[in-house]
Amino acid sequence: MRRATPVAPLDVREVEAFDTETDVLVVGYGCAGAAAALEATAAGRDVTILERASGGGGSSALSGGEMYLGGGTPVQAACGFEDSADDMEAYLLAALGPDADAEKVGLYARESLDHYRWLVEHGVPFKPSLWDSPTWVPPTDDGLMWLGENAWPYTEIARPAPRGHRVTSEGFGGKVLMAKLIDAVSHTPADVHTDTYATRLIVDGERVVGAVGRRYGTDHYYRAGAVVLTTGGFADNSDMVAEHAPQLVGLGVNSDGSDDGRGILMAQAVRAAVRHMSAGQVGISLVPGMMVRGMIVNHVGQRFLNEDVYPGLVGQAALYGQKLRVWVILDEKAYEEVPENERWGVQPHVVAETLAELEQQIGMPEGALETTVGEYNRHAANGEDPYFHKAARWLRPLEPPFAAIDVRRGMTPPEDGGADGGAAVFTIGGLRTTVDGHVLDLDGAPIPGLFAAGRATSGLHAWGYVSGTSLGDGTYFGRRAGVAAADQ
Amino acid sequence: MRRATPVAPLDVREVEAFDTETDVLVVGYGCAGAAAALEATAAGRDVTILERASGGGGSSALSGGEMYLGGGTPVQAACGFEDSADDMEAYLLAALGPDADAEKVGLYARESLDHYRWLVEHGVPFKPSLWDSPTWVPPTDDGLMWLGENAWPYTEIARPAPRGHRVTSEGFGGKVLMAKLIDAVSHTPADVHTDTYATRLIVDGERVVGAVGRRYGTDHYYRAGAVVLTTGGFADNSDMVAEHAPQLVGLGVNSDGSDDGRGILMAQAVRAAVRHMSAGQVGISLVPGMMVRGMIVNHVGQRFLNEDVYPGLVGQAALYGQKLRVWVILDEKAYEEVPENERWGVQPHVVAETLAELEQQIGMPEGALETTVGEYNRHAANGEDPYFHKAARWLRPLEPPFAAIDVRRGMTPPEDGGADGGAAVFTIGGLRTTVDGHVLDLDGAPIPGLFAAGRATSGLHAWGYVSGTSLGDGTYFGRRAGVAAADQ
Repeated sequence: MRRATPVAPLDVREVEAFDTETDVLVVGYGCAGAAAALEATAAGRDVTILERASGGGGSSALSGGEMYLGGGTPVQAACGFEDSADDMEAYLLAALGPDADAEKVGLYARESLDHYRWLVEHGVPFKPSLWDSPTWVPPTDDGLMWLGENAWPYTEIARPAPRGHRVTSEGFGGKVLMAKLIDAVSHTPADVHTDTYATRLIVDGERVVGAVGRRYGTDHYYRAGAVVLTTGGFADNSDMVAEHAPQLVGLGVNSDGSDDGRGILMAQAVRAAVRHMSAGQVGISLVPGMMVRGMIVNHVGQRFLNEDVYPGLVGQAALYGQKLRVWVILDEKAYEEVPENERWGVQPHVVAETLAELEQQIGMPEGALETTVGEYNRHAANGEDPYFHKAARWLRPLEPPFAAIDVRRGMTPPEDGGADGGAAVFTIGGLRTTVDGHVLDLDGAPIPGLFAAGRATSGLHAWGYVSGTSLGDGTYFGRRAGVAAADQ
Repeated sequence: MRRATPVAPLDVREVEAFDTETDVLVVGYGCAGAAAALEATAAGRDVTILERASGGGGSSALSGGEMYLGGGTPVQAACGFEDSADDMEAYLLAALGPDADAEKVGLYARESLDHYRWLVEHGVPFKPSLWDSPTWVPPTDDGLMWLGENAWPYTEIARPAPRGHRVTSEGFGGKVLMAKLIDAVSHTPADVHTDTYATRLIVDGERVVGAVGRRYGTDHYYRAGAVVLTTGGFADNSDMVAEHAPQLVGLGVNSDGSDDGRGILMAQAVRAAVRHMSAGQVGISLVPGMMVRGMIVNHVGQRFLNEDVYPGLVGQAALYGQKLRVWVILDEKAYEEVPENERWGVQPHVVAETLAELEQQIGMPEGALETTVGEYNRHAANGEDPYFHKAARWLRPLEPPFAAIDVRRGMTPPEDGGADGGAAVFTIGGLRTTVDGHVLDLDGAPIPGLFAAGRATSGLHAWGYVSGTSLGDGTYFGRRAGVAAADQ
């Protein structure tokens, strides 16, 4: 199937006249684009931002608003935690691997405190209080959360400290983050061209010298000293997902609907290299507070990991290892223990007085849950989980009555448009960049004039993911790309 | 890290003089290259084959020699099996998915009988006798084998028939296949330039018009009407593996040592698109005949699939789902039942009179194997496996004494150079091509003058793999690429 609007670059000699000339052209106005624009304007450059939607925000604005920060931030200190860049680096290398970008991770960890300060200076609020239970997003406005650091095996790899810095908000914090960054940009001379969809790069020989932006059906030609692609991932491009991350096909998508991979393709068309295009964040439809007090099992009733890890790790394990055929099993006491505001409206799909009855109703093999819960209870009575090493805090024998939640039914009933198959995903692979945002070509050489940051790039991650590393590396490496682009 | 010899294409205007002019330049002399050369010469074209090694064969010659063929071949008929193209297509779509290339799979299934005849006409021998037990390669010279078609859930998707056509040979058959194809090529006017490593394409505007081949340190310039890349996958390129398939990092590699992805990169440098670069075939170090009579369990003693599936599916599940921390558990009777010639020298690493003793020696949680084998035996006594649906033929309660084999120790002791970590892999993603081998660019348009086949391309597969589909699609789509290249 031929693409209607090609991504192949346009030769500058074919451009009759440029509509706009600017020093730095930032393509995409999510957190990475805003950060790049702020740094490039701070360096005294003319900046123009192109945004496909009618305003800034992108997928960043719809996110939970977690930033992975550490090394001893004031928020960590106020909550009583010590932390170091080394521990942060060790945790990220383990959690984001195998083959996480060691140079990016190391730099990100060492400069995390500085980045925290930069965010605060730009108005981003973090409340110094801890939400102390596994969750996707604190249901309160607490500003600090664990993101798997206190779960096995990471407890043996790095000294645990909570590093999820959640932008102060009721509910999801991404909108607050973007409101603050957009407000900061509005106090700079940067121009923002909304409703403008960048379709291809403009090249002069090997050098990128601009881009074509389509606005209300008309192509506008932008000449720039440097182009910074901050266009997001490709979760909304079903062809690209099928080509690069087939396990994500057919699931819900966690995005603003415009993560179509165009920026990645535009750069590949000038020979940019990509990394880890198969990798995805898998937001699974369950309540971590319920899972951690009970267990998660596959379609034949087997547990497959310690339930106190970062929930995204559960999502990946459930999708890649179990094809999402997973159930949360808990007892009445566990359900009741979960604070009302943390239940997200989720209720058990099946309840039963005995495990034999429960497994039969679910359609599991006879004996499956009796065996698994039997083993779990026998060890939990001793405060142990020799199978998967869930922390003792969450261990106690489960007692009747029992309940089960079918993850594939999702959190939102189909009548509310929530037929996501039990998960909502986004892609974390993308363009290969240096720590300064230079886009590298297939030979490992920087493409002159071309920079990128955010989910259009392969950032800190290889295969693994923890929350806060997208807004975190988007803003941090967005800033670096802005500095480097200003320098061109 | 900058690549020493760039893959970026060479402009034809920079070529002072061509050393060789040919109609069709085939790059790589494995099964796909041989098939392309045979068809292009049959169409009356001048053909030149470049091969990096000192002779043809490539990774094809080191392979088991299985070709996935069906639809009612004479070999199937002689062994008493009926088959249809529809059943073959349905099985492949299920086993190679999600998102296997439906157009390629459909065509491949419908033309499988014709392709069988073509192979036989070119001297490839298949003995009409069945090896009737799960295996990597029959330890006999039997020419037909099951490749998962008779295992659940595929038994519910398509009428089972064995379709693994193994080129007649003692042991691995790839060398026989390649000897026959190379012999066939030697009876054509095709020129073979060995010791010649293709490093980059030569382009005239958008059109590929040749390639540069390095021989003993000197660049030779080839002008061609069409170039067919049959350069193999990228399993030997550790950078590419880390970038695209990080789960395969550090494992053994199943190749001739030259699957460095160069052909894929050379094509990407002229804007070729790729698909499914993360996918891999995982040859796991175990004896299927032992596994199927016992069980395979993970590091906490859980089974995770029916042991009678195609062993490569076990390999993928063990790697992606269990990080290869898997053990084969069996009893003395099962071990003794495995024919001597099928044991590949593998002996138990741990033996014990009781499961409690066995699990303790392995280091599994107390109760782990007792629970799993207990459940297995209880159901096996009824001829059932409600957990994973292994066929009744392989089910019986396991009895003391018990044994365990640690898959990660591999089949070959380290002193024999076999430290493969328990698996040997190769990559199955690559260039996006039409069914006629045209390489497609990022916009979905054929790149003029450029064709590809074999493991340099994304063939029938998406994520899944069954044996015989590499030599199968290499030769079949190699032939089609040869025909189409001859037509340019």
